[in-house]
Amino acid sequence: MSVAMVGAGQLARMSWQAAISLDVELVCLGAADDAAGRVGVEIVGGSGYDREALRELARRGEVLTYEHELLDLDALAAIEAEGVAARPSAGLLRLAVDKVHQRRTLSAWGVTVPAFDPAPDTSAVERFAARRQWPVVIKARSGGYDGRGVWICEDMTAVEAAFEQAERGALELYVEEGVPLANELAIIVARAASGEIAVFEAVDTHQEDGMCREVVMPTTVGSALASQARDVAVEIAERGELQGLMAVELFVNRRGELLVNELALRTHNTGHIHTEASRVSQFEQHLRAVLNLPLGDPARAVPAAAMVNIIGPADGSDPADRLAAGLQVRSAHVHLYGKSPRPGRKLGHVTVCAPTPDEALQRARLAAAQMQGDA
Amino acid sequence: MSVAMVGAGQLARMSWQAAISLDVELVCLGAADDAAGRVGVEIVGGSGYDREALRELARRGEVLTYEHELLDLDALAAIEAEGVAARPSAGLLRLAVDKVHQRRTLSAWGVTVPAFDPAPDTSAVERFAARRQWPVVIKARSGGYDGRGVWICEDMTAVEAAFEQAERGALELYVEEGVPLANELAIIVARAASGEIAVFEAVDTHQEDGMCREVVMPTTVGSALASQARDVAVEIAERGELQGLMAVELFVNRRGELLVNELALRTHNTGHIHTEASRVSQFEQHLRAVLNLPLGDPARAVPAAAMVNIIGPADGSDPADRLAAGLQVRSAHVHLYGKSPRPGRKLGHVTVCAPTPDEALQRARLAAAQMQGDA
Repeated sequence: MSVAMVGAGQLARMSWQAAISLDVELVCLGAADDAAGRVGVEIVGGSGYDREALRELARRGEVLTYEHELLDLDALAAIEAEGVAARPSAGLLRLAVDKVHQRRTLSAWGVTVPAFDPAPDTSAVERFAARRQWPVVIKARSGGYDGRGVWICEDMTAVEAAFEQAERGALELYVEEGVPLANELAIIVARAASGEIAVFEAVDTHQEDGMCREVVMPTTVGSALASQARDVAVEIAERGELQGLMAVELFVNRRGELLVNELALRTHNTGHIHTEASRVSQFEQHLRAVLNLPLGDPARAVPAAAMVNIIGPADGSDPADRLAAGLQVRSAHVHLYGKSPRPGRKLGHVTVCAPTPDEALQRARLAAAQMQGDA
Repeated sequence: MSVAMVGAGQLARMSWQAAISLDVELVCLGAADDAAGRVGVEIVGGSGYDREALRELARRGEVLTYEHELLDLDALAAIEAEGVAARPSAGLLRLAVDKVHQRRTLSAWGVTVPAFDPAPDTSAVERFAARRQWPVVIKARSGGYDGRGVWICEDMTAVEAAFEQAERGALELYVEEGVPLANELAIIVARAASGEIAVFEAVDTHQEDGMCREVVMPTTVGSALASQARDVAVEIAERGELQGLMAVELFVNRRGELLVNELALRTHNTGHIHTEASRVSQFEQHLRAVLNLPLGDPARAVPAAAMVNIIGPADGSDPADRLAAGLQVRSAHVHLYGKSPRPGRKLGHVTVCAPTPDEALQRARLAAAQMQGDA
């Protein structure tokens, strides 16, 4: 069996670890010195915006899938029309790439999302804020990630600054309500072509500057909301006829309502915790789903767990040089991505399983801090 | 950090999965189409009996270690004398390679082993059996594994047949008492150069034709024997100044006494279970020990687990072709080694974690049987 994957970063690298166990071949689109290329994954050189590279990649696997959304969806649709098994499909992938399309589609499916409007100009934002209230959030319609392409605006001065920045990036924008947050959740669902569905437990996520920093399970929001999150994930997976893996990021607002904030049609930072905390990793589950194999058991395997990202420190030093300090923390599972250090760059993560979420989080934080050199 | 490893089979392959997480480079001695070579591990071509190949391998890593004992110990000792950090040392490795040396050394350290004698000829066996009782076990002094080089003899006719077979293989032999078995245990200990020691929980093992087939934890022998097994493992690791990982296989005889049957100075089939069942895998623990990193937490992470090997079926068919059937078993963690199928060859294993050892074993057996085509 063989899987072709757009992208060769850390998600592809961890997919490779899972692929080795199942003896599944993995071929990735990217560069030889990308995180996955450095550990022996076969690489097709090129970018997801190059139709020929996509076509060449697709030839190398039974199925085509992705570890990021930086690709030309029209080219993908064309290749799909030529008979390539793109999983998820180009049509569904558009939900992750085009946020306005995502919000509209989810609304049409009865899934609650933050109130939003396209924002071709600042006056559209002004009208939206007048109808609702400040603050509002301006977001890039596509291409934003890890907090890039997101501006929280308290007034029109901030809106104008956001538009100026966006113009430099030639970004198309939309505006949405600033949701007063009680909690943030994420949940990962897998669906195979057979229709089989498996949902991991919802996790609590903690973002910082728009980047996922910490994940904890079990969630603290209570079983009613967790079960609602599960229903939302299943609803989207079934409506969208998902073939593969999907991560759903959710807001819980101060009224205790659940709103979908973000979709990713792939493995996701919030799912790293399952490698140690659940009965199957998201990486193996992804491979099983796209290959239409029976799905793995997504049940939690431990009382509690926490995952904390290892971020490149401001002084440019390399957390890998402090691996021993991280491993000194009891039960710390350290995952390094083999990427060159840059301040603010995700370079790895630590997961700790423990009797309670608090203990797991404390130890995972300590290990990450040790490796970042700030402990 | 970088580790050079003699051998490129399934143990090296699973070591590679662990090395990727720690961003440790792994270079293996073997062939490009060995189990590890097929998944992108860098390979130095050659055998452990070729001094130049060993020297070339050693140049490629900070430390030199092993996934099997098929190597020239004199060559290794010579390379060690040139300044290579061989972990474990050539001296200690001799315990695993030369069984008579092993039995004598362990006895001198006060560790109980089966009664034994060198057996240069059949009359030595006859004298041994006269002093003790039938049956006796004739074993190759070195080079035997997975039941090869072992003959259980009820009488002198069987002894003569064993000697005939051994002569064809030019094997040096020894004889030992046939221990009336109540149980078989295995336990894995890691020791770093720092002196830090970590011991995994003892596991029950079930052999068939001398090959490890099943492993279950927690052990059924009770905490007194388990703790005694732990003491034995620590004693050998400390006396031998182990740097690396060691597996100790133990007999429990019908009088409830513990005897060391076998040592391996490396990762071991009986340790595969820890990948899912304990807080660190034996493969990561091995890397941490030889690199003198802080050792991982060897505590059991789940109520119970079982590991069952996937063996090449008699009809020559490939269990990998029945992967879907194996994955249909709930919570089955399937590990395939990417080896070409041959009847009786270890091609993979399945681990299942469950609330009870019986349930884990039943499900692991079912998954392995499904993949072997005999379920």
